[in-house]
Amino acid sequence: MTQEWKSIKECKAFETLSQLAENPVDLTAPDVLTSERVEAFCCKGDIYKLLYSCQQVTEEVLEGLQSLADECGLVKQFAEMRQGAVMNQIQGFSSENRQVLHTACRDIFTNMPACEFATNQARVELEKLNDFLTELDQGYLLNGAGESFQTLIHVGIGGSDLGPRSMYEALQAYADPARQVYFISNVDPDDSARVLSQVDLSRSLVLVVSKSGTTLETLANETIVRTALTDAGLDPGKHCLSVTGESSPMDNPDRYLRSFYMYDYIGGRYSSTSMVGAVMLGFALGYRQLLEFLEGASAMDEAATVPDIRKNIPLLHALLGVWNHNFLGKPSVAVLPYSQALHRFPAHLQQCDMESNGKCVQRNGKPVQLKSGPIIWGEPGTNGQHAFYQLLHQGTEDVAIEFIGFRRSQRGKDQQIQGTTSQQKLMANMLAQSMAFAIGKDDGNPNKCFSGNRVNGILVADQLTPKSMGALLALYEAKIVFQGFCYNINSFDQEGVQLGKILATEILSRMSEKEDEPSLAETFLTVSEMNE
Amino acid sequence: MTQEWKSIKECKAFETLSQLAENPVDLTAPDVLTSERVEAFCCKGDIYKLLYSCQQVTEEVLEGLQSLADECGLVKQFAEMRQGAVMNQIQGFSSENRQVLHTACRDIFTNMPACEFATNQARVELEKLNDFLTELDQGYLLNGAGESFQTLIHVGIGGSDLGPRSMYEALQAYADPARQVYFISNVDPDDSARVLSQVDLSRSLVLVVSKSGTTLETLANETIVRTALTDAGLDPGKHCLSVTGESSPMDNPDRYLRSFYMYDYIGGRYSSTSMVGAVMLGFALGYRQLLEFLEGASAMDEAATVPDIRKNIPLLHALLGVWNHNFLGKPSVAVLPYSQALHRFPAHLQQCDMESNGKCVQRNGKPVQLKSGPIIWGEPGTNGQHAFYQLLHQGTEDVAIEFIGFRRSQRGKDQQIQGTTSQQKLMANMLAQSMAFAIGKDDGNPNKCFSGNRVNGILVADQLTPKSMGALLALYEAKIVFQGFCYNINSFDQEGVQLGKILATEILSRMSEKEDEPSLAETFLTVSEMNE
Repeated sequence: MTQEWKSIKECKAFETLSQLAENPVDLTAPDVLTSERVEAFCCKGDIYKLLYSCQQVTEEVLEGLQSLADECGLVKQFAEMRQGAVMNQIQGFSSENRQVLHTACRDIFTNMPACEFATNQARVELEKLNDFLTELDQGYLLNGAGESFQTLIHVGIGGSDLGPRSMYEALQAYADPARQVYFISNVDPDDSARVLSQVDLSRSLVLVVSKSGTTLETLANETIVRTALTDAGLDPGKHCLSVTGESSPMDNPDRYLRSFYMYDYIGGRYSSTSMVGAVMLGFALGYRQLLEFLEGASAMDEAATVPDIRKNIPLLHALLGVWNHNFLGKPSVAVLPYSQALHRFPAHLQQCDMESNGKCVQRNGKPVQLKSGPIIWGEPGTNGQHAFYQLLHQGTEDVAIEFIGFRRSQRGKDQQIQGTTSQQKLMANMLAQSMAFAIGKDDGNPNKCFSGNRVNGILVADQLTPKSMGALLALYEAKIVFQGFCYNINSFDQEGVQLGKILATEILSRMSEKEDEPSLAETFLTVSEMNE
Repeated sequence: MTQEWKSIKECKAFETLSQLAENPVDLTAPDVLTSERVEAFCCKGDIYKLLYSCQQVTEEVLEGLQSLADECGLVKQFAEMRQGAVMNQIQGFSSENRQVLHTACRDIFTNMPACEFATNQARVELEKLNDFLTELDQGYLLNGAGESFQTLIHVGIGGSDLGPRSMYEALQAYADPARQVYFISNVDPDDSARVLSQVDLSRSLVLVVSKSGTTLETLANETIVRTALTDAGLDPGKHCLSVTGESSPMDNPDRYLRSFYMYDYIGGRYSSTSMVGAVMLGFALGYRQLLEFLEGASAMDEAATVPDIRKNIPLLHALLGVWNHNFLGKPSVAVLPYSQALHRFPAHLQQCDMESNGKCVQRNGKPVQLKSGPIIWGEPGTNGQHAFYQLLHQGTEDVAIEFIGFRRSQRGKDQQIQGTTSQQKLMANMLAQSMAFAIGKDDGNPNKCFSGNRVNGILVADQLTPKSMGALLALYEAKIVFQGFCYNINSFDQEGVQLGKILATEILSRMSEKEDEPSLAETFLTVSEMNE
């Protein structure tokens, strides 16, 4: 199977697309951005629509992208991944050599899951979680003083933090108002100190998340929180929970009230629908809404199996990204959600995408043949309009833009001002920006000219709910995986984080040997010597 | 004076630097990154050090950059700006035509300020603020029930939000624990709804910030908050404050308890040390610490007037950025603070830099001669190490990196684990990453190779305090202004935000005429028609 893998560079359609990219459609020209184009370049899924009339694509480009998808077997590889193929590997070299089965966590709404053993493991953990939440809800599980737990402190970093945190922020409108969630991630002691100054520890659960059970930052923060519990006269073993690999150092009933498992076939950055995200979301939203979240993700995984790029939103989104990045040469992507609740979602995508696809070696061990993943960044609109959109409109760096919007607000607390609601203003601004980027504007004053052709797409759904959030998460996960297949890279390892870790350990061992902290220069020297 | 302005492209040193950039120093070569280099390539200021040995520069490059600075008169222009030159203009075309005097807000620690009238205006507002804070502190100003105000809700967007918000997050460790600050910015009604669900309005002040007094989002959010006050049986006029231009619609004693002024010579994104940031910071930190914040900024403004680039951190930082962006071709800059308290500072810089320097027209009305400002993005370390550093180390996009770190934590709550404190772990990681990016590593496994030469610099200070925060803010403001001078652009307008505003207004007028919301396609069509 692995022999078949190739990058888009080796596809017949690559040359055609390269030629088309030399002279892409000019969105500022008259009669290009017509209502027919807007209608035609719209991909309708069950929950989301993808509007892509403001991308510099034509029917020919779409045909070329379809050929790339077919020749690289993107949908086929995605299906193999879901079924348990060992996708996390570099052929001929030592590598993690693992399956990639985050999709199995949510493939629980069918009797025929794509990968039965992994979905069965997910079901076991979900049942454990359901039991645990029931005990909390029904008052069987209380603190030492017989009071309910009102707070959960989620301790993790990277994949054990950004995904869960952004999901919590996105769905906080649906959380039990009596329950709060706080996050500690950074090894910076001010991070834990700030959170600990805000919570009532006696009524807090502490959820420590680390697959290996050995993550430096997380262990340091766990120790600090345990000390705070002890200092408050509380028993850490009655407050701490863990999410970790089975048999890891953190799978220890003496130290944890409960341990929930994640498995080595789930990478941290893809783990939001595993116990890594589920325990916290279950605590905040309740088990029923957690299932809705998983259902949305599962539905999107299914939608990603359709071979026709015009009917498969994640696949189309991925290929439009490849068109912008590898053919039109745009080095970065701005993800701009017109939803304040999604304010941390771009940071999660930054992690998920850049750690997956920021690679320079193909799955066959050879150097990549074209640029791999772009820089991902972004902030919510309309805020960004008053911040960095100036550069997007008139700057000299060319950025591909991905809007995300919803027709209705989450909380429904709105007011009509000057004839429209705030939600209408929000939507109107998103649509206006999309169009402004595409069509530009001439003006006699050169400082008031807009060149246009700033490509963008819009993902739009009715409302941001647990279900549509799950779908959006899975949409982007699939998009990232598809792009990794296009580059023929391993999107599931992260060897690039190792060198810094090794050097930090060396510096720390120097620091711990000395009374005084070595000067910065001395430290630099130390490191430099080590490298000789 | 304006006739003298030129871009670095027109400097004699430009050609020399372009040649040097063809073959920059290889940081991975033996004997390049020596202790002598680390010592020599360190710029020591009063509060910060800038370590730049991991930049691809040599003595010759630094000489070339010094020539650029001299030929363009960067320091001279900065001095003229501080003295009140009309820097916000495009010659020969209609433009804002204003002075640029944010520095005057903090030039209050001398009897000879650079621009007396503006500093006098700042002093008047500071006195008003001091009186107001004293009334609050001493219990003269209370709510209708005779209770103290414990909460301030800061309502603003863009420059009236990101700067103040990031400063508050940075300095929250020093805030009065009895006082809380919340922010509402987005027109998304869920933003205000979430904040309003968290506060006790009866004990809240509402600070509405808009220079013009007409910002769409801010007015909508103000209306929503005023309605909530009224619904709670409270008198909005007794809870609301404003920061606005003198005589703007928001300068109205019938509607506001107090109005503090900002002037048209201060751009929103440079307004954190004006009343825009000062009222909120004064409420949270007290007047004394607010002055320390201003003092740090003022000291940095002074430090920015030194012509020798090796002794002027903001200037050197700016020129190293220009070297990386315009000579070495790096399209984006990652700002990576190793301080959780600075978690929103990159978002502020993203605004301040990209809105200032994301331009395509010179101050003489001609197109820019080289790339103007880069994309700015970033998240705190160590978090980022577990997120996007993979791409920085091994990806195909080349990013210039700016680290920021502090020797001591803010809150001093730390613990020794495995021989070192969390603060030591934090510092060790920053230094290790800096070195790892520069020197790289060979390996027989291509997936474990690091190419190195990923350029970076480190700004380091003893501790993040009000004073060092003020200094850091002013350092970056000056850096951005210097880079704008290098490109010969107007860093103080934002014409690029206008087109979207116009189109949004058109769409909203369509929406308000209809009972039903027009379909997306119809809206797109509308906009498209308007452009014909």
